[in-house]
Amino acid sequence: MLYLIGIGLNDEKDITVKGLEAVRRCSKVYLESYTSKFQAGIGRLSQYYGKEVIIADRNLIENQADIILDQAKSTDIAILIIGDVFGATTHSDIYLRAKEKGLDISVINNTSIINAVGIVGLELYKYGRIASLPFFEESYKPATPYSVISDNLSHSLHTLVLLDIRHDQDRYMTASQAMKQLLELEDEKHEGIILQETRIIACSRIGSEDSLIKYGAVKDLISLDFGKPLHCLIIPSKLHFIEEQMLDTYSIYNSV
Amino acid sequence: MLYLIGIGLNDEKDITVKGLEAVRRCSKVYLESYTSKFQAGIGRLSQYYGKEVIIADRNLIENQADIILDQAKSTDIAILIIGDVFGATTHSDIYLRAKEKGLDISVINNTSIINAVGIVGLELYKYGRIASLPFFEESYKPATPYSVISDNLSHSLHTLVLLDIRHDQDRYMTASQAMKQLLELEDEKHEGIILQETRIIACSRIGSEDSLIKYGAVKDLISLDFGKPLHCLIIPSKLHFIEEQMLDTYSIYNSV
Repeated sequence: MLYLIGIGLNDEKDITVKGLEAVRRCSKVYLESYTSKFQAGIGRLSQYYGKEVIIADRNLIENQADIILDQAKSTDIAILIIGDVFGATTHSDIYLRAKEKGLDISVINNTSIINAVGIVGLELYKYGRIASLPFFEESYKPATPYSVISDNLSHSLHTLVLLDIRHDQDRYMTASQAMKQLLELEDEKHEGIILQETRIIACSRIGSEDSLIKYGAVKDLISLDFGKPLHCLIIPSKLHFIEEQMLDTYSIYNSV
Repeated sequence: MLYLIGIGLNDEKDITVKGLEAVRRCSKVYLESYTSKFQAGIGRLSQYYGKEVIIADRNLIENQADIILDQAKSTDIAILIIGDVFGATTHSDIYLRAKEKGLDISVINNTSIINAVGIVGLELYKYGRIASLPFFEESYKPATPYSVISDNLSHSLHTLVLLDIRHDQDRYMTASQAMKQLLELEDEKHEGIILQETRIIACSRIGSEDSLIKYGAVKDLISLDFGKPLHCLIIPSKLHFIEEQMLDTYSIYNSV
């Protein structure tokens, strides 16, 4: 059996009971570690599970998936995925390869940033498409995230902006960098979507006990230190009364 | 302390280890039971937790929230929420009331239909706004779900369609009913979005081991029995190669 197990966003106890029971049955346990970052550190996983957790980097997952999957023909193998199971194309790809090999597959779900962001207080039903913001380079400054936000706003929808991860270089985009990049796009597009005065939400470590959520104008949020990764931004659209009240609890102007 | 704990979509072992530890510390455990349905039955929760699970219906949650929350001033109280914690306005409302009372609040996340639907194989980043389809009545046939699908399609985005729940009447909309209602809206709007030939995905009990996922034309899916609730539909937009391959594994035409 191949178990595909979401392990949530923060620490070793975010796995479900069902997931933990499966892990403890498995003869090998891999952690897909290049599409996200496990906040509490991988050592804690091995220790808690009482099993070696093998880091599956991009190379192992993309080029040597067969080696992992073939083991699941005769024994129980787990691939752990940070957040929920189907968060990236990679995971569909693993699933398809396993299907092709005729393996039994068990999917054990967990939270992902997509629903955990609900804590910010904006209705999940009122989010539009997710925007992904890559690290800008001199000759690579894609405007897609800006146009996703723009489209969503024109339909009165909020936007979750996920920030780039370069796991191999240990680089994780900060909320502040993300705001700078969005301001750069604003300078180019001039739609008035992300201005210094625009009120947005910046977050770090959503899903963990030391998560930080701040609501305020870009010019004020941009200088704040959100600490360890992962960070993300939310660009709110028109607010419902309850949403406004929720955001108030995170306002940087209340605590000044 | 007030614990707001997502318990996932299916059975008693979908709670996280962190959530289970919290539940076992609590002197009272409530289950918010009117915005969703717990698939495995509530008796199994009480038995597994070793605690009485008190059903918190609409009246208790909306009108007597103070009674529940006031207990959390002096002892540990859990409110369990099916799926993830912030799935409905109700949950923001509880959070806000608890904040007002100055309570310590701990949020323990879990999966929700919004990310668990990833198993269908469509990229979560390519979904637009979620559509909610209410039971039609003679004088109440809102076209919003249709226009949400239409907007999403015009931006090449997939749509998750969540189906109405009338918990107090034990009524849960089936995939078949949902398709009929969408065809009714098509007859009215004529945008060519949901025709007999349109290929969509119909699902039941996503997140559980007996989930059913079928991909095919509306005219063929509409007569299928998807069994016990909850059901949902997904209206796919333009498909990426991997998405196509994933949907193929669910095609009703492969198994004929």
